Amino acid sequence: MSKLIVQKYGGTSVGSPERIKEVAKRVIRYHDRGDSVVVVVSAMSGQTNKLVELINEINPGGSAREKDVVLSTGEQVTIGLLSLALEAQGCPARSYTGAQARVMTDNAYCKARISNIDGSQIKQDLADGKVVVVAGFQGVDEHGNITTLGRGGSDTTAVALAVALEADECQIFTDVDGVYTTDPRMVPEAKHIPKLALEEMLEMASQGSKVLQIRAVEFAHKYDMPIRVLSSFDEGDDGKSTLVTREEDIMEEVLVRGVAFNKDEAQLTITGVPDQPGVAYKILGPISDANIEVDMIVQNIGSDGTTDFTFTVHRNDYEQAKKILCDTARELGAKDCTGDDKIAKVSIIGGGMRSHAGVASQMFEALAKENINIRMISTSEIKVSVVVDEKYLELAVRTLHEVFQLDQ
Amino acid sequence: MSKLIVQKYGGTSVGSPERIKEVAKRVIRYHDRGDSVVVVVSAMSGQTNKLVELINEINPGGSAREKDVVLSTGEQVTIGLLSLALEAQGCPARSYTGAQARVMTDNAYCKARISNIDGSQIKQDLADGKVVVVAGFQGVDEHGNITTLGRGGSDTTAVALAVALEADECQIFTDVDGVYTTDPRMVPEAKHIPKLALEEMLEMASQGSKVLQIRAVEFAHKYDMPIRVLSSFDEGDDGKSTLVTREEDIMEEVLVRGVAFNKDEAQLTITGVPDQPGVAYKILGPISDANIEVDMIVQNIGSDGTTDFTFTVHRNDYEQAKKILCDTARELGAKDCTGDDKIAKVSIIGGGMRSHAGVASQMFEALAKENINIRMISTSEIKVSVVVDEKYLELAVRTLHEVFQLDQ
Repeated sequence: MSKLIVQKYGGTSVGSPERIKEVAKRVIRYHDRGDSVVVVVSAMSGQTNKLVELINEINPGGSAREKDVVLSTGEQVTIGLLSLALEAQGCPARSYTGAQARVMTDNAYCKARISNIDGSQIKQDLADGKVVVVAGFQGVDEHGNITTLGRGGSDTTAVALAVALEADECQIFTDVDGVYTTDPRMVPEAKHIPKLALEEMLEMASQGSKVLQIRAVEFAHKYDMPIRVLSSFDEGDDGKSTLVTREEDIMEEVLVRGVAFNKDEAQLTITGVPDQPGVAYKILGPISDANIEVDMIVQNIGSDGTTDFTFTVHRNDYEQAKKILCDTARELGAKDCTGDDKIAKVSIIGGGMRSHAGVASQMFEALAKENINIRMISTSEIKVSVVVDEKYLELAVRTLHEVFQLDQ
Repeated sequence: MSKLIVQKYGGTSVGSPERIKEVAKRVIRYHDRGDSVVVVVSAMSGQTNKLVELINEINPGGSAREKDVVLSTGEQVTIGLLSLALEAQGCPARSYTGAQARVMTDNAYCKARISNIDGSQIKQDLADGKVVVVAGFQGVDEHGNITTLGRGGSDTTAVALAVALEADECQIFTDVDGVYTTDPRMVPEAKHIPKLALEEMLEMASQGSKVLQIRAVEFAHKYDMPIRVLSSFDEGDDGKSTLVTREEDIMEEVLVRGVAFNKDEAQLTITGVPDQPGVAYKILGPISDANIEVDMIVQNIGSDGTTDFTFTVHRNDYEQAKKILCDTARELGAKDCTGDDKIAKVSIIGGGMRSHAGVASQMFEALAKENINIRMISTSEIKVSVVVDEKYLELAVRTLHEVFQLDQ
């Protein structure tokens, strides 16, 4: 049976005229077997950086509206070129900018959110047998201003289009052939995962498995849109892929699906804070006012009526966050204010954790056996994360991968 | 009194971040003295060529619609960058793509014609004290498809916007400071012309004085929009310029305004054609079917019931046109079919010719004195053009410049 498929190709996949022709060839294989294909593309690799350089030479602090006018041209070039490549190989095609595809967004320039997509004209083109090529990463607000979606925008465009068009599948072509139990560059025994739940992918993505952008996974999760991750470097259609789909569609639920890790964070601690209502807000308020995102947060109540408070931020924000925190510490009469940017976060993720107790303690035991000190713990329904010294990262990942038998 | 001015800057004027900042500085001088300013910009020099190269690597014969999607990005980059440069210098600005400016065109992709511009939103921005920056060379058809206007498109955008907004003046900034009596590189005595009539400029432009695109001058002529040609390389506002305006606004009408010339043409002749109704169509029809533009046309009726027919085409089209003409010659039973691509066209132009007889014969006499053979003659109300051997071009131009006292 023929399907409606939305495919997304990133900047590397369309990085040169030759690569664009390869993408056209692949799209045509799907089109020729009767599928309706909508292709979402990024800017050719390097192009967005060139545009950013131009902007920075002129006015790095300038208005986000005008930056979006400049930045959105990268994808516009690619849609025209891919449509021309499809035509050159005999396949009727039609390009759409974000505005032409009616990818409606709010007007938060440079990080706009999609509110709605009117897919009626695209559906008409598909019914006429055309391949539709849409610019990722961009949209238009209600007044016709061009907006861009920010990081991960093209993945989000693809998923949102798939939802709007009621596609059967959203295929994300990238430089890897799917999701692995952990990073194969660190653990050669890492196994390819053919199928996992959207919730699991959400945790994997946010934990640093950089295959899919978390916004896109969140969108897919919200609307139950299955995503398939494939490699655009595979020849033919027999390559491996990972299908990310609804939990109900995954027959065998495993205890632990994978081990994710992240070396981009730094830890900040404030100790001996007089415990009183609103103390968490007093500590984190100034941090978020400075536009610094906080990831893990742990609070312990001490015995002497004071509290210890630890959180992590991106390593790039470490110095600034530490300065703000130490100012706060003085104001609150806290005992001490410390930090460490040589840490790493390691997480185990798996939908099966919901119904199985003891996974967390199994994790802690395994790390203890290797003498790896745990500095922070944070848990969700399907994830346990710990912060360890950066130097133990590799050992921790290998140990957990083995203990939970992910290599089998 | 404050004015509404449309300014156009070409690719060289916005060729680098530094040049864009210079343009911003110049725009702000007008804005600061209270003028409302709309700026039309081209793509940064070299950008359009890069885009054309990408297109040609993929599908040079591909659909014009998709080519326009790619080509229109060049100007879109410039409008964003110039708006950022204006903001950086403290001047509120807002960019418009062709579509956002509602530059409505037909759907003749790559050579679209402007049908209408809805300037209401631009007027609102001007009333709010903003500088409005519009992408030249591009528009949008009634279905929202992106179109480009083809050669000279940015000049045309500027004039059309000036007309739609009822501007006081359309200023074209280029790399020369206006129009001269002839090309100063050939005749050092050439004089700057501070003011000339639109009709005269129309003839000058079409005769190869490459200061303004003829389409833009035609548009200005049709709607009586004064154009001022200025150099974007002049510092300050005291530079020279040429105002091109209605004939009525020019007090002193001169006999000959300037000498224009053109080395880009080639001559084709078919002799001894049996004279019968429709012969001109039979000769030129196949040429125009091949999309070859014909410039001068001269037909002489011979004494033996046959006719000789001569015309000129662009030198690039010479070989193809000659082949077509010789095929036609055989079909029509003509005597001969010849051609020459080593020719040049020289024209004298001036509104005063209308009321003064004898200008043409004065021209022919001057050329005869120098032993320059005239191969073709064509005249209009305010212009006399002759075709001469290319080797006599410089002598012809100098002679005419002197004879009509243009150096005084």
